[in-house]
Amino acid sequence: MNKDYIMPNEWSIIEEGFNDENVKASESLFSIGNGSMGQRANFEENYSGATFQGSYIGGIYYPDKTRVGWWKNGYPEYFAKVLNAPNWIGIQISINGTELDLNTCKVLNFKRELNMKEGWLSRSFIAELSSGEQVEVNTKRFISVDFNETGAIEYHIKAINFSGEIIFSPYVDAGIMNEDTNYDEFFWEILEIVEGENSGCIQSKTLKTEFHVSTAMQIQLALNNKEISASHKTIVEDKKLTYTYIVEVNKGDIATIYKYGSYATSLNYKIEDLNSASLSNVQNAKELGFEKLLETQIKSWGIIWETADIVIEGDVKAQQGIRFNIFQLNQTYMGTDARLNIGPKGFTGEKYGGSTYWDTEAYCIPFYMATKDASVAKNLLMYRYNQLGKAIENAEKLGFKNGAALYPMVTMNGEECHNEWEITFEEIHRNGAMVYGIYNYVNYTKDFDYVVKNGIEVIIAIARFWHQRANYSAAKDKYVILGVTGPNEYENNINNNFYTNYLAKWCIEYAVDCLNKVKHNYLEDFKRILDKTNLTIEETYQWLKVSDNMYFPFDEEKQIYLQQDCFLDKEIIPVKDLPKSERPINQKWSWDRILRSCYIKQADVLQGMYLFEDRFSKEELERHFDFYEPITVHESSLSPCVHSILAASIDRMPKAYEQYLRTSRLDLDDYNHEVHEGCHITSMAGTWMSVVQGFGGMRVWEDGILSFNPQIPEEWKSYSFTINFRGSIIKVYKSQTECKFVNKSDNEVKMLLNNKEVLLPPNKLFIV
Amino acid sequence: MNKDYIMPNEWSIIEEGFNDENVKASESLFSIGNGSMGQRANFEENYSGATFQGSYIGGIYYPDKTRVGWWKNGYPEYFAKVLNAPNWIGIQISINGTELDLNTCKVLNFKRELNMKEGWLSRSFIAELSSGEQVEVNTKRFISVDFNETGAIEYHIKAINFSGEIIFSPYVDAGIMNEDTNYDEFFWEILEIVEGENSGCIQSKTLKTEFHVSTAMQIQLALNNKEISASHKTIVEDKKLTYTYIVEVNKGDIATIYKYGSYATSLNYKIEDLNSASLSNVQNAKELGFEKLLETQIKSWGIIWETADIVIEGDVKAQQGIRFNIFQLNQTYMGTDARLNIGPKGFTGEKYGGSTYWDTEAYCIPFYMATKDASVAKNLLMYRYNQLGKAIENAEKLGFKNGAALYPMVTMNGEECHNEWEITFEEIHRNGAMVYGIYNYVNYTKDFDYVVKNGIEVIIAIARFWHQRANYSAAKDKYVILGVTGPNEYENNINNNFYTNYLAKWCIEYAVDCLNKVKHNYLEDFKRILDKTNLTIEETYQWLKVSDNMYFPFDEEKQIYLQQDCFLDKEIIPVKDLPKSERPINQKWSWDRILRSCYIKQADVLQGMYLFEDRFSKEELERHFDFYEPITVHESSLSPCVHSILAASIDRMPKAYEQYLRTSRLDLDDYNHEVHEGCHITSMAGTWMSVVQGFGGMRVWEDGILSFNPQIPEEWKSYSFTINFRGSIIKVYKSQTECKFVNKSDNEVKMLLNNKEVLLPPNKLFIV
Repeated sequence: MNKDYIMPNEWSIIEEGFNDENVKASESLFSIGNGSMGQRANFEENYSGATFQGSYIGGIYYPDKTRVGWWKNGYPEYFAKVLNAPNWIGIQISINGTELDLNTCKVLNFKRELNMKEGWLSRSFIAELSSGEQVEVNTKRFISVDFNETGAIEYHIKAINFSGEIIFSPYVDAGIMNEDTNYDEFFWEILEIVEGENSGCIQSKTLKTEFHVSTAMQIQLALNNKEISASHKTIVEDKKLTYTYIVEVNKGDIATIYKYGSYATSLNYKIEDLNSASLSNVQNAKELGFEKLLETQIKSWGIIWETADIVIEGDVKAQQGIRFNIFQLNQTYMGTDARLNIGPKGFTGEKYGGSTYWDTEAYCIPFYMATKDASVAKNLLMYRYNQLGKAIENAEKLGFKNGAALYPMVTMNGEECHNEWEITFEEIHRNGAMVYGIYNYVNYTKDFDYVVKNGIEVIIAIARFWHQRANYSAAKDKYVILGVTGPNEYENNINNNFYTNYLAKWCIEYAVDCLNKVKHNYLEDFKRILDKTNLTIEETYQWLKVSDNMYFPFDEEKQIYLQQDCFLDKEIIPVKDLPKSERPINQKWSWDRILRSCYIKQADVLQGMYLFEDRFSKEELERHFDFYEPITVHESSLSPCVHSILAASIDRMPKAYEQYLRTSRLDLDDYNHEVHEGCHITSMAGTWMSVVQGFGGMRVWEDGILSFNPQIPEEWKSYSFTINFRGSIIKVYKSQTECKFVNKSDNEVKMLLNNKEVLLPPNKLFIV
Repeated sequence: MNKDYIMPNEWSIIEEGFNDENVKASESLFSIGNGSMGQRANFEENYSGATFQGSYIGGIYYPDKTRVGWWKNGYPEYFAKVLNAPNWIGIQISINGTELDLNTCKVLNFKRELNMKEGWLSRSFIAELSSGEQVEVNTKRFISVDFNETGAIEYHIKAINFSGEIIFSPYVDAGIMNEDTNYDEFFWEILEIVEGENSGCIQSKTLKTEFHVSTAMQIQLALNNKEISASHKTIVEDKKLTYTYIVEVNKGDIATIYKYGSYATSLNYKIEDLNSASLSNVQNAKELGFEKLLETQIKSWGIIWETADIVIEGDVKAQQGIRFNIFQLNQTYMGTDARLNIGPKGFTGEKYGGSTYWDTEAYCIPFYMATKDASVAKNLLMYRYNQLGKAIENAEKLGFKNGAALYPMVTMNGEECHNEWEITFEEIHRNGAMVYGIYNYVNYTKDFDYVVKNGIEVIIAIARFWHQRANYSAAKDKYVILGVTGPNEYENNINNNFYTNYLAKWCIEYAVDCLNKVKHNYLEDFKRILDKTNLTIEETYQWLKVSDNMYFPFDEEKQIYLQQDCFLDKEIIPVKDLPKSERPINQKWSWDRILRSCYIKQADVLQGMYLFEDRFSKEELERHFDFYEPITVHESSLSPCVHSILAASIDRMPKAYEQYLRTSRLDLDDYNHEVHEGCHITSMAGTWMSVVQGFGGMRVWEDGILSFNPQIPEEWKSYSFTINFRGSIIKVYKSQTECKFVNKSDNEVKMLLNNKEVLLPPNKLFIV
């Protein structure tokens, strides 16, 4: 595969020339979505080459059987899997009896564009069929942000060198499978196929979970840009509804099909209303028309970009990369529905079998918090709050008691979807991220009400978990946490992971702080909470015994917190001394060798210092960065951004820029040779953080004060970004010579700039 | 299931009364075999109830696809799986048109007996069919020790209350599957079906491995004990050859079918000779006749028992238990073929997907060494020697170099058959057992020639492994071994497991000792060995740097070697304080909870002290026993025997007896609720060791001196056992009042009795 085939462009992802080896990668990269639904950039017409078909609806999952080599007690019997949803984009095309299939004809002038500014995908090419006919095809497709159950396709075919018959056969196909089924199972049941006047739908339901989905299409035809009346033949197969339209063309004519598609699901409608809902969606879309629908799309994306955009001058690839990341994040999650979350592949693939990781709390919340209204981050917190019951059940399954909660490593519906014991059972630091998400949100928004009303229950349940999970070590006369996996998954079943122990201690302390604050300011709520959670003050004293006496592995000589108890028994050889041929080690080395090596997949001690940077001195940060960075291999997409931010924070801009490069074009340049499986959505938030928190130096700690410390890589002319800070839109501009702020609000905003207090006047440019 | 339904009997395993819930358990317990082939005690006639069909041929395996939940680099792509072999025992029976099927008729007087003294299985019952006919059935079946490709069945049916037609339909069925296939695959291809005069065979071959097997049968009929001429109709199906014989009977008549079966395999014959070989086997068997064949069987088992038997007086269940263990060990492995080994389920089931574990070296070699000629143990050593190349490949796959070998955890053909990373890659102590097996053999037999000719290559390759696997810890200024799983599989990925580190150090030292000995006594061989293995003296100095500076975790206060570095960070709560409802913990607790608990599945530090007991003082043994025994849950079948032996060795007979009880009737009383899957063959050797090494106190250390220290549990009147020590047969008798030895050889045998030197005179009774 050609790894670097995307054309540099500030606002678009562009592929030129047809290369069948790139089809699956492009299907991922050119994916479109609106936060509620999305799809890979599969061709509308049939394609007999290698392709990975995927359409997805947020919140629709299937509890598939857990597949394991060796069963361990505590594994989930079933786990939620992202389901491939019925296909509404398909249009089979026949030219004078020959099928249009890019795999079997000569393709010229192929171009694909994902316009990120306006939120649409286009494709154009000239195809010469084996039978000699030449056609010019121009398509445009989008999934509407405004009508979030609806998508639209415009498909032009020009008859270049022939007269005759073009047959369009648009269809809805509910007979779709997942690529990652364990046993080639079909997860849907077809309930009803409804035919209408140029419209139709299929209602199907998922097995077991019984999500009902009605998938509709509506067709409109035009010849030379004038609507023509269309009559069709209908083919109803087992799981597929196809309409066949014959359009007679003369040489030079352009035949056009408009296809509107929609999902209506039982998440949002009564079952008996689904078909009418989906059909009325496509009917409305048709009545509005493709052009008008597209106009609203462009307008809505414009609004999104107003607060989300990052402008980089002087580096078009960096510009394209950061926008691609921001665009995909928005396509994956818009923040309007607390039942949804940000899957690591979004709507671009199936992999990872579940939707939500701790990535959401550790990486995504800062992005959504700063680029959207506070309600969006709150919805992400509510998602976890609503799954608290299942997190408590999960902990009970593992032997915890008294309302302790362990949030799952991977989940769709609150149930654990993961089954590698060293992660499922041991990568428990994720529980700390749940609390950190709340802490981060409260710091940024000052919305302590969320804690009082909801968050405190999560915080208590997690404090209980840490209290029970630690044990007293007589040998150390301290509390220890044995048998964990830290963020660095290249060490498993270790004792006293600094990051985990630090978060455990902090979670308990934060819980007690919050409880005290609630007690003093919301006494009625305090009583209600104690009652609801069966909590006593005495219990919190027991927690504090653990947090006050938590053990941290520390090397006196090096003055370094150790990643785990025995870390210094390892041979410490810097990554730079490792032969290139042995990297990435996760492909070249056996697992045991990785485990006993010093190499770090993903920031671990440094992740902790990043999250609590305000509690460490610059010298401490430097010392730990200098120890850990040289042995970090960054084989997780979530790693370089943290190192980039920390490097910037200790004034090492070349290192910060080097790490930034690793994260920003991960998918576009397919560093990991896997973009065909889908994009790395959650790590894209890390790229955004590298600019805003790293180069921009933005922080908001517990005191709630917004602060900046802008720096700029030598390689760039300038960059600028915008944040929404408690309703005030603030634009930050940094060039090699200048630093400017614009406060686009009616309120004065107090902030720290390079550690000095500054007042940003309302609606004014502020030049540093 | 009725757990305790086996009738106590000194020489037989007996089941009385038909209980369909016991069928699968009895199929395991009553299994028969001759070391080369074996089978579960499936009924000859069809049985429509729950049954687990199994016939197995030693050395016939299939490389099945590895099934994993999450792939780790270094896992085997394929692994050898014990294959269910064609069925030659089947005889469908019809009485006046109604099928005889114990699941559908009334069964009276059902009795099954496995006569261990004589090596045969019998079954008798009266069946009343739904159509009213009553028959009395008496069957006897055995697999010949003398003709080790042949088995025989005698099947009598008496017509109790009817006259009419009995139809016998004996068959060979090559259409058999494994119960443990991953994807319901069929692993055999049928090549040829040959019909003959009352005989016939099917030749089939395994897919991929292409083992060819010809499975033959030969039929003989009798009426009222007189042979009758038989003519049959033949039914040839896809994978099955059936002959149909009609016998007219009058009320009171006894119709008998004799069926002889045989496998001839390409392990032993040219492919073109297989059918004639299997057919001539069954022809010869028929000519000899069932009775004569049985006579040779009885005689051969008599010879086996001469050296293998342990007699226990005053405890019939203990007597039955120990004989069952000895019998099954002999049925599994006779020691005549260095290509075979001792699978943990022998020929009694499929489980564990491979044949050979470290159980062979650690548990089975002592048994075979003492109860058979030295050539048998040597064959077991040769098995590993012959697989050295694959062990080196295996180590290379994991990143080791320079001819280092890592023997697989589970294997059939030298390739790894296991894929749980914490075991496959980390339970490396198995490599030490390979060397210990050699050491044990040389101590017992004085056959150092084996080392010179073969063993030294294994020893060198393993020393190289340990040298590379250890690393220097700057923090400890010692060599450490990180990331291992010790014999106690309830701790994974630990550092500096005492047992592993001890074996590693010892292996290197033993390698250097052996090399020195070879150098001084076999200089030519020494040169050949250095040459063949590319070894230099300088390299051995590097090894010694590791062994001389090996780190052992030790607690100064308790004066205890620790199972691993962080063991004392755990909460130490004795097993007796664990609620019964939480045990066995491997069924009640999640894996992470087990891992961070102090509970020990299987002797670990104590296993090391057992293997090298001569290097620890009695006080040390007591101290470690007192620390580890109370936290050992013995949830491995291989654990109690070691604790039993050590307890006896520190004069704690009640504890020794308690642990002995846990091991000796494990399968007969089905402690683990899993005997229906097959018997625990390798742990049976541990039971034998508990008597001979535990109660009898037999040891032979590096000085080669045989020593005894006989004690007896209060519960027994007496016990006696026999060993073959360098060709001298020595019988040991111990009662509550007496201790006697008989040296059944022409040589005086020098030994230590209770640490005092004693000379056993030739062919004489010696009373202590």
